[in-house]
Amino acid sequence: MFKDATITQIDEVMKSAQAAFRVYRKISLKERAELMRAIAREMEALGDELIRVAGEETHLPEARLRGERARTIYQLNSYADACERGDWLEARIDTAVADKAPPKPDIRKMLVPLGPVVVFGASNFPFAYSTAGGDTATALAAGCPVIVKAHPAHPQTSELVAGAIHKAVAACQLPEGVFSHVHGQSFEVGEALVNHRYTKAVGFTGSFTGGKQLFDWANQRKEPIPVFAEMSSINPVFLMPEKMAVAAAETARQYAGSITLGVGQFCTNPGLLIGVEGSDLDQFIAVLGAEVKTIAPAAMLHEGICKNYVSKRDEALKQSGVEVVAISGIEPQDNQGIPTVVAVNGDTFINNSVLHQEVFGPYSLVIKCKDIAQMTEVARHIEGQLTATLMATDEDIKNHQALVDAVQDLCGRFILNGVPTGVEVCLSMHHGGPFPSTTDARFTSVGADAIKRFARPVAYQNWSDSLLPDELKNGNPLHIWRTVNDVLSQEPVV
Amino acid sequence: MFKDATITQIDEVMKSAQAAFRVYRKISLKERAELMRAIAREMEALGDELIRVAGEETHLPEARLRGERARTIYQLNSYADACERGDWLEARIDTAVADKAPPKPDIRKMLVPLGPVVVFGASNFPFAYSTAGGDTATALAAGCPVIVKAHPAHPQTSELVAGAIHKAVAACQLPEGVFSHVHGQSFEVGEALVNHRYTKAVGFTGSFTGGKQLFDWANQRKEPIPVFAEMSSINPVFLMPEKMAVAAAETARQYAGSITLGVGQFCTNPGLLIGVEGSDLDQFIAVLGAEVKTIAPAAMLHEGICKNYVSKRDEALKQSGVEVVAISGIEPQDNQGIPTVVAVNGDTFINNSVLHQEVFGPYSLVIKCKDIAQMTEVARHIEGQLTATLMATDEDIKNHQALVDAVQDLCGRFILNGVPTGVEVCLSMHHGGPFPSTTDARFTSVGADAIKRFARPVAYQNWSDSLLPDELKNGNPLHIWRTVNDVLSQEPVV
Repeated sequence: MFKDATITQIDEVMKSAQAAFRVYRKISLKERAELMRAIAREMEALGDELIRVAGEETHLPEARLRGERARTIYQLNSYADACERGDWLEARIDTAVADKAPPKPDIRKMLVPLGPVVVFGASNFPFAYSTAGGDTATALAAGCPVIVKAHPAHPQTSELVAGAIHKAVAACQLPEGVFSHVHGQSFEVGEALVNHRYTKAVGFTGSFTGGKQLFDWANQRKEPIPVFAEMSSINPVFLMPEKMAVAAAETARQYAGSITLGVGQFCTNPGLLIGVEGSDLDQFIAVLGAEVKTIAPAAMLHEGICKNYVSKRDEALKQSGVEVVAISGIEPQDNQGIPTVVAVNGDTFINNSVLHQEVFGPYSLVIKCKDIAQMTEVARHIEGQLTATLMATDEDIKNHQALVDAVQDLCGRFILNGVPTGVEVCLSMHHGGPFPSTTDARFTSVGADAIKRFARPVAYQNWSDSLLPDELKNGNPLHIWRTVNDVLSQEPVV
Repeated sequence: MFKDATITQIDEVMKSAQAAFRVYRKISLKERAELMRAIAREMEALGDELIRVAGEETHLPEARLRGERARTIYQLNSYADACERGDWLEARIDTAVADKAPPKPDIRKMLVPLGPVVVFGASNFPFAYSTAGGDTATALAAGCPVIVKAHPAHPQTSELVAGAIHKAVAACQLPEGVFSHVHGQSFEVGEALVNHRYTKAVGFTGSFTGGKQLFDWANQRKEPIPVFAEMSSINPVFLMPEKMAVAAAETARQYAGSITLGVGQFCTNPGLLIGVEGSDLDQFIAVLGAEVKTIAPAAMLHEGICKNYVSKRDEALKQSGVEVVAISGIEPQDNQGIPTVVAVNGDTFINNSVLHQEVFGPYSLVIKCKDIAQMTEVARHIEGQLTATLMATDEDIKNHQALVDAVQDLCGRFILNGVPTGVEVCLSMHHGGPFPSTTDARFTSVGADAIKRFARPVAYQNWSDSLLPDELKNGNPLHIWRTVNDVLSQEPVV
């Protein structure tokens, strides 16, 4: 329905973004924040039509879509607040010391925008991780123009949201090139966007294959550029022995909901449950199985995702040593994912890498370990993850510190006695993690720290006050927090 | 004299580093700082012997070596202070909100160490950017064990400094594997270190070829790891018209010193001087030439560097349109680099990429542009740099904003009316810059922010106070700055 952008069109879009960058980088933090808030308002103004179109394209239920739009609007507004507050600028000032040998010059540093950012949205979050999602919002906060490649699974939705952003850009009297929207089903569109000389960073949420390809292209450029790709994650949950002794059934009921939430299509869906074999774990498995049998299959995002679920699940089920714990007792319709829980022992898991791969959908694997030492070994064999969870008592944690450390090493967010699904939008959130959950464990895609993916420090040496950016002027006219001669302060420099 | 480490030895070293990591990551910020201060003391205790050996290996003058050791000791102590102060941890706390739907959990985030870091030191700074240099100090501050590959141009010096570090590690009763030292002339040693599964990050200072190779290896791993490589930089200086009208001769004298300082072997050596043709620039060139003719050649770091200088300089001199401005009138002895200044016009520079390459040594190129527009075009054609400098009046800056922006875009440190040589060790320093000056413009190798190269955030969700790291406990026992519910504070959470 939408034609792929041609190489010529992509070049025009990137030139327009680069031209807009020269203007957009100069506007104040307040003006950037106003653009973000205007986008939030325009997105709200799309009303029921946006929900209807997104529902048709993604098969997500209306309540979920309304919730996700509210979250997206909240993100835009909260990142706008953070943009204005300016903590993310990491402003640092060291004043001159004339009587040092040699004299120490005045040096002041802050983050400045990298330049045009290309964003590849996710199929599973048509609003919050797509066209006006977290990557777009944080790139705009950083001062970077954004070029979104619409996700082919919801191009109409993306087109509507892009229209809202264009309106906001116009209302703020900013150059059109601050935001561009292109379509592309083909490989070549993504490649041309990542390889364009004006592209200075990439944000991506999606599959390992897709994200890794962008990362490789970006690193093979003559001038490599940073890619933040959020990719696969199976979000292991470690069921510790004392906790299981006191709360096996309760934990099982809590997890039956989490592993099937949204037909298992959350990046934080818990796909691995690891415990020590014995009667407590048996009880956990029995209750989990009984619950999962009663959970109805539901429509997945699109046919391709469902096909992929069926084949990955089939591949897992036929591995040696894999036993079925429970499959939903309700027949799936077309494109529905069927809730499934299987189990293996620790040795089988450690020695079969097929079982380490993500099965995107309502599927989880229980690993029955011989003992805590084997749980620790399993933790050391699991690749990097967005989240990991301990279901544990305080005593469990104190008694098994090597396991706790091994679990922390594999994740970006470390949950105690909770479920990983549900990603709070706040500064302390870390939605990132060691490879392959993301391409750089040092950055997040949720929370205002995500702005830092798209900015770099510049140190100004020996500049006179009137020529410095407002953020670094002696008088601190923006009243931001700055580190002045090693001390955090909102005061003017005297 | 020193044998290359074998693959088996490298594997042992990395296993020892990984084992040490399990202990070292757990010690307090104060204990890390104590190790760093102990290293500084042991380095001081090496006394004249260290200066003598380094002088023999690098041909650097004694005063320079004493100054560099003092700087290295200052770095270790100042990064130790920063480590303890804890601002770099980026501690963030969002407290739970029970009456939100769904309830918002308590989330707290801080930086944690990546794991073992491999450091490749520089030949031009045998102390400050080598064995106990900035990369080693900041990795230790982050909580990472360090493995240094000795620079083959000063292996004895490296061995002495490594001995001092081993003593400090032992005195602090830390596992030996916190610091390891290996030798390697061959390609294979570096490759094995970067590719080892326990290596989690790499720091490098040196040539483009070396740094880019490490970057490529690291990105081609099954689990890619971050590499911070500081590579080539020619540090352009833009001579703006009004400034030249009032201070051409004075600027020329200032720069004659900077371009020949340390036989041009600083990463911030100004290799390009760009101005608008006319009588003011002619005066600048005449004075610069007269000064350079009187500056004596001096010994370069080693034979290889001098040979490279001779061949790169010869290649530049024979490019079409290159005219010699001045060559030192004093004959060079063996392994001495001869101060040289040449000139070309703007068109010639833009169209000949050979002239854009670094000629490591006491060499600079003056570019005579037709007008400010061509200076801006030149700025847009120059690759990423550690520094760029404007020699300018306030009016120059106000009148030529497009040029100023283009110059900022290409650099990490932006100097006004000064020289780029001299890298102050302080928090506001940015010693980094767009590719190819470094592999990631978002990080620095000088100043306490350099610690962040070797750490990643972990968010703790729903942890009880007693189980949290001290940095995130309600009471704030370490009295560090934290962002609590979006507000920076040193107060306890109540």
